[in-house]
Amino acid sequence: MINNQSGNWIIKNGTFVVLNNEQAVLKGYMLVEDDLITYIGEEKPECSDDIPVVDGSHLLFLPGLVNTHGHAGMSLLRGYGDDLALQVWLQEKMWPMEEKFTSEDVYWGASLSALEMLKGGTTTFLDMYDHMDQVAKVVQESGIRAVLTRGVIGFCSEEMQQHKLNEAINFAKDWNGQADGRITTMMSPHAPYTCPPAFFEKFVQAAHDLDLPMHTHMSETLSEVAQNVADYGLRPTQHLEKLGMFTRPSIVAHGVHLTDEEIEILATHDVGVSHNPGSNLKLASGIARVTDLLKAGVTVSLGTDSAASNNNLDMFEEMRLAALIHKGISGDPTAIPAAVALRMGTTYGAKSLFLDNVGRLAPGMKADFIALNTDQAHFLPHTDFISHSIYSASAKDVEHVWVDGKQVVKNGACLTLDEERIRREAQSAFEGLLNR
Amino acid sequence: MINNQSGNWIIKNGTFVVLNNEQAVLKGYMLVEDDLITYIGEEKPECSDDIPVVDGSHLLFLPGLVNTHGHAGMSLLRGYGDDLALQVWLQEKMWPMEEKFTSEDVYWGASLSALEMLKGGTTTFLDMYDHMDQVAKVVQESGIRAVLTRGVIGFCSEEMQQHKLNEAINFAKDWNGQADGRITTMMSPHAPYTCPPAFFEKFVQAAHDLDLPMHTHMSETLSEVAQNVADYGLRPTQHLEKLGMFTRPSIVAHGVHLTDEEIEILATHDVGVSHNPGSNLKLASGIARVTDLLKAGVTVSLGTDSAASNNNLDMFEEMRLAALIHKGISGDPTAIPAAVALRMGTTYGAKSLFLDNVGRLAPGMKADFIALNTDQAHFLPHTDFISHSIYSASAKDVEHVWVDGKQVVKNGACLTLDEERIRREAQSAFEGLLNR
Repeated sequence: MINNQSGNWIIKNGTFVVLNNEQAVLKGYMLVEDDLITYIGEEKPECSDDIPVVDGSHLLFLPGLVNTHGHAGMSLLRGYGDDLALQVWLQEKMWPMEEKFTSEDVYWGASLSALEMLKGGTTTFLDMYDHMDQVAKVVQESGIRAVLTRGVIGFCSEEMQQHKLNEAINFAKDWNGQADGRITTMMSPHAPYTCPPAFFEKFVQAAHDLDLPMHTHMSETLSEVAQNVADYGLRPTQHLEKLGMFTRPSIVAHGVHLTDEEIEILATHDVGVSHNPGSNLKLASGIARVTDLLKAGVTVSLGTDSAASNNNLDMFEEMRLAALIHKGISGDPTAIPAAVALRMGTTYGAKSLFLDNVGRLAPGMKADFIALNTDQAHFLPHTDFISHSIYSASAKDVEHVWVDGKQVVKNGACLTLDEERIRREAQSAFEGLLNR
Repeated sequence: MINNQSGNWIIKNGTFVVLNNEQAVLKGYMLVEDDLITYIGEEKPECSDDIPVVDGSHLLFLPGLVNTHGHAGMSLLRGYGDDLALQVWLQEKMWPMEEKFTSEDVYWGASLSALEMLKGGTTTFLDMYDHMDQVAKVVQESGIRAVLTRGVIGFCSEEMQQHKLNEAINFAKDWNGQADGRITTMMSPHAPYTCPPAFFEKFVQAAHDLDLPMHTHMSETLSEVAQNVADYGLRPTQHLEKLGMFTRPSIVAHGVHLTDEEIEILATHDVGVSHNPGSNLKLASGIARVTDLLKAGVTVSLGTDSAASNNNLDMFEEMRLAALIHKGISGDPTAIPAAVALRMGTTYGAKSLFLDNVGRLAPGMKADFIALNTDQAHFLPHTDFISHSIYSASAKDVEHVWVDGKQVVKNGACLTLDEERIRREAQSAFEGLLNR
């Protein structure tokens, strides 16, 4: 049994997914000092005799999973509209409900998402939405790590545009580095098809002024790409390059429909792509060219998108989908092997979010990690734990979770959030939206 | 808390997935008498005052899931070879190990599979393999329902062919109707590309003599289809029709590469297709034409294939993959809606296996059903339980399982099998295979 340690402590008899050049998995010890991993190896490190020791037998330790695209507040709309044409789903289901969202709705939606993510092994998430102070509050309370950004749609008066831009700037300034450094921020015009070029450029300028990275939706559907070409004579990647976005460190979500030339642009500017396989399949947006992106040197990470289009926030499922669908589509069973899918869900995710010390189990990294119980039928025999993590595991296999050195999930229960209350309030918030 | 009832008992306050013409979900009562469901409805039925009543609050009751294609013994090879080209996987990994399989290995492999399936809500499975009396023994012990068949590869002397055929006939005769009727049997030549036509025809004859259905692998890969055309001048469906297989009630596994004409033949003869999306994607075999098959009136069910090529036996994942990938491939977000995916995993599965009283929650049906706890973050809000079952759930959400009226899983623990021993013996069987 692992205790809720803080300060310095050590795990013995653990199996650790290290995925470095020498080995995939290591059996032995991991030393945690405050918020950092300071040692990992087969031999016991030098440390004081009275350091708390916890037994990691039967546990597989992985870096916490990194979800690089989502809208946490929208979990209130899980299952509210499925199996519909995209425009029907948006215009008849999502938008009328989202218009009614209050700060309180976003608070309970984001709480529900944080609860689901932490229990499922996600320790870092990127969130783009409105009422972002509420999401930041949930990050503070839950102990999760997050990259937060006020996503702005520019279909409005110039006055309103300026108001929203200021809101995005103020949020990004106020919250960057908060929650003991667990919150960082970005600038996010919602998408090239929802923000006029001049408005989009103001976000680029603000990102320069604040020295922040940028995030946007890009090339999710064929029709938005066609619209971009019709409106601006450029494909979206070229359009965003022209608007200067890629002079900032950037990550784009989806990137489903890309030409070779666009992939080259993304690679040249080191722009990350958040691949959202579950959402892209469910909304029938298409299949991103992930093997080509990786081949070109683009950092491809994974996102769930919102629970309204997924319909869960299980990053194990996204890793498995990434490993499976690109094999099936390409006809190549060696495409996206398990270790690559795992990196997409961890290391590449952290890199995409510009978090240098997150995403791996190694000395000097933040103590963001999770433990699965390997004593279960679907993890037997113990042949290959990387394979098992990708092809056999699910969110519910996560037993323990630590973020920034603090335990936030223990034996499957969240230590930081009031689960029962969140479930009740989320249900009631949904019913409120439905009835008003 | 639900007790391990037998005889007559009733569930109150339950939410039942009935998926009939009137409604998808019903809240109320379900009466179980011995092995049968005898009532389901909103009002309390007439029954004796002292009948045991169990509270189904917070539980979603679904028909037990039906896995229509697999090789249970092969779970011993889970994770032993992944992300490899098909021929490398078969020739260097699977076949050399399978050649060494003893009866005992199959017993422990099948026990591991039965344990995983029951805990994950699968109450019926079709199994095609060798050493089938071991699998039958596991079915007896575990309480699961199964359609069992000795799968025969015909690459051998005529004498050996005859020996294997006799083995298949004797197994099918001896075990049909055993385990209180939970076991039925079929005749299974392994595949058209592994059984010469004359040998295949002997199975058809035996199926007629014994009045049994037939099962085989068909059109899983492009190369086997090309080989069939080269060898016999016919595509596999036409070839099997010519050999007389479809004069028997039949189900074929995979059916990935089919022409319109072949789909028409399958529809005409009412041949079921077991769609195995996880395995087909992982082995890069291709994407079956499921929407076209359903449109033509073919009964399409779902199978996991073995844990060596999947790598789990989670039927919730297969239902979700079926609902997701055919949307993504077709570009139509209304393809395979949640209710259809759920039927593929339950009703259509039972129909494909010629089990008339399995696969639905309705009076007169076998009491094979499962319960999920809906008081969990990823099932909130309670918008649409059919959607949640397909897009949000996983095997590990299953709390209770009943087969033939008997509870076999309670609070996530298997009541009929020794979990700890099975895990230990499966690991040791794998190590034995590796070392001899």
